Amino acid sequence: MIIDTGYVHGGDIYSRPIRLDFSANVNPFGTPEAVKTAVRAAAEKLSAYPDPYCDPLRERLAALNGVNKGDVICGNGAAELIYTFAAALRPQKTLLPVPSFADYESALVAAGCEPAFYPLSRENGFLMTEDILTAIGPDTDLVMLCSPNNPTGRSVDRDLLLKIMDRCRQTGTWLFLDECFYEMTDEDEAFSLARVLRTGDRVFLLRAFTKAWGMAGLRLGCGLCKERALLESMSRLTQPWNVSTPAQAAGLAALDCPDWPKKARVLFEAEKPFLRDGLATLGFTVLSGDANYLFFSGPSGLYEKLRERGVLIRNCANYRGLGPGDYRIAVRTHPENGALLRAIEEALHV
Amino acid sequence: MIIDTGYVHGGDIYSRPIRLDFSANVNPFGTPEAVKTAVRAAAEKLSAYPDPYCDPLRERLAALNGVNKGDVICGNGAAELIYTFAAALRPQKTLLPVPSFADYESALVAAGCEPAFYPLSRENGFLMTEDILTAIGPDTDLVMLCSPNNPTGRSVDRDLLLKIMDRCRQTGTWLFLDECFYEMTDEDEAFSLARVLRTGDRVFLLRAFTKAWGMAGLRLGCGLCKERALLESMSRLTQPWNVSTPAQAAGLAALDCPDWPKKARVLFEAEKPFLRDGLATLGFTVLSGDANYLFFSGPSGLYEKLRERGVLIRNCANYRGLGPGDYRIAVRTHPENGALLRAIEEALHV
Repeated sequence: MIIDTGYVHGGDIYSRPIRLDFSANVNPFGTPEAVKTAVRAAAEKLSAYPDPYCDPLRERLAALNGVNKGDVICGNGAAELIYTFAAALRPQKTLLPVPSFADYESALVAAGCEPAFYPLSRENGFLMTEDILTAIGPDTDLVMLCSPNNPTGRSVDRDLLLKIMDRCRQTGTWLFLDECFYEMTDEDEAFSLARVLRTGDRVFLLRAFTKAWGMAGLRLGCGLCKERALLESMSRLTQPWNVSTPAQAAGLAALDCPDWPKKARVLFEAEKPFLRDGLATLGFTVLSGDANYLFFSGPSGLYEKLRERGVLIRNCANYRGLGPGDYRIAVRTHPENGALLRAIEEALHV
Repeated sequence: MIIDTGYVHGGDIYSRPIRLDFSANVNPFGTPEAVKTAVRAAAEKLSAYPDPYCDPLRERLAALNGVNKGDVICGNGAAELIYTFAAALRPQKTLLPVPSFADYESALVAAGCEPAFYPLSRENGFLMTEDILTAIGPDTDLVMLCSPNNPTGRSVDRDLLLKIMDRCRQTGTWLFLDECFYEMTDEDEAFSLARVLRTGDRVFLLRAFTKAWGMAGLRLGCGLCKERALLESMSRLTQPWNVSTPAQAAGLAALDCPDWPKKARVLFEAEKPFLRDGLATLGFTVLSGDANYLFFSGPSGLYEKLRERGVLIRNCANYRGLGPGDYRIAVRTHPENGALLRAIEEALHV
């Protein structure tokens, strides 16, 4: 919760009237009916405490990802797990590529840690390259990656990811990999390290239900990790009932709807080129991203002009490594995407 | 979340079949219909992130408690706020009366702190006495109290509470007061320090919706504190979206039903003496508590015998300062309370 000011994320539809929200990267089809039904049914079971073990949900997640139930931790949204992971590990030296999701740094600072930033090059489209391998040394306690990266949408290449994992094994470095956009990734780019995890690997994979099943308001995330001691530390730092009964029920319902993210991916196949071309035609520099959002650079002040028109995009000026004129937009339905392009065009000509 | 074992609380209805749950201290009438309706309505708004400011809810809570909106922090259940409070304060010396709610100690230990225990005397019915005033010194960073206390049900006398507050002002000590059972307290015992808070007071008052409005599964708690810097520290240690959209909506709906806890208090007027007398007749030592639960001492093994009969009570053997044969039961409806007494009688005669 934010006490006064200082909110730096997208999705703030509460402070002012918004008719189009492109600032939050959730499934454009929203929440599956089965998830809504599960939440409505859970309204009858609110009096009892939630299952502190999240047992049925963890069993399903374990089976889906080819790990054991004991390798799965659930949280009050993936965001909670970022904070708890940092607090449990308290790494001395963390390598943090930038730009990336702001809460990695916030969570590290909250845990009393000072991250070392690893700048991704704008000239190279913020792509992760093999250079990172030499930046990981025996003194590196932790590397925090996001793939596809937020806000750039760039995935870490599969082979490079495996090389990073190997390098971390050599140096005894923890690898935190945020795969929260995994289900929203282009089919041919989708790859999870879950498939190659071995017992004792110091790898923490972060997953969310937020994006793929439109459940941001409900708060449910999970982590996969083969190092039991870390999960036990995280558990000790958290209350026993952090995952609500509606969230647990909704998670199970979501896993019964694997086609929901798929339906969105089909939409993205046409809509990503449409938005990319539209933005390029307006003179912006657009990255080709692998997720359900696009990163582009244009004139500063665009965010404010769109907000005046009731259109919210993500102003990326406050991301470390980015600046004024950097923006991120979600890919949404065709009518919405068209409306966004028109709103931008209008805003530019005022 | 609990990874493997180690759950020490009541309300675990998930591990085994239970027909009567007396282990969780929630309103025996469950959740008000208006709260269920709010949750069902929120099922339509899950796609968007929750309001990170919890603005409407904090405004209502502030008005109700005679404080400012900036003095109110919301959490994913009161339990989350206990952990975040301890992590934000990191007190060197904490005075912790025992027996009390186990998560105070867990939260302090998680924050790297070693509490100093202040034993409440069984001979004196675990009542808080003026002796505590001399135990609070200039080296005491924090005192953590629960009133009515969990699991004993004993309130701290109103005048003593004000004296403790004064003493803490003198010594620069933080006072954490858990008022989570405030709305379930006997009418003539109900008193909140919120009424006498002054700007800058190092007092943190914890409140929950769990007990009074049967919302344990939904997770919503709040803290009232006039020391802004502490709330800002707590906010920095937490993700921005820790309070879900359904929980925020349910909280507002609950505050529209002030008669719901009142209805339960009317029930308790008859049912507490009924249960107390019934337990005393069975030869147990019963404390007269001020909340919606009763603490009693009897033969060890009762918990297990009742569990075999599908009846869950709170075994207090694992509370610091208590031991085998100490139990806590919620006060529920007359038919349930009667069924509990019969089940105990049966269990004793096997």
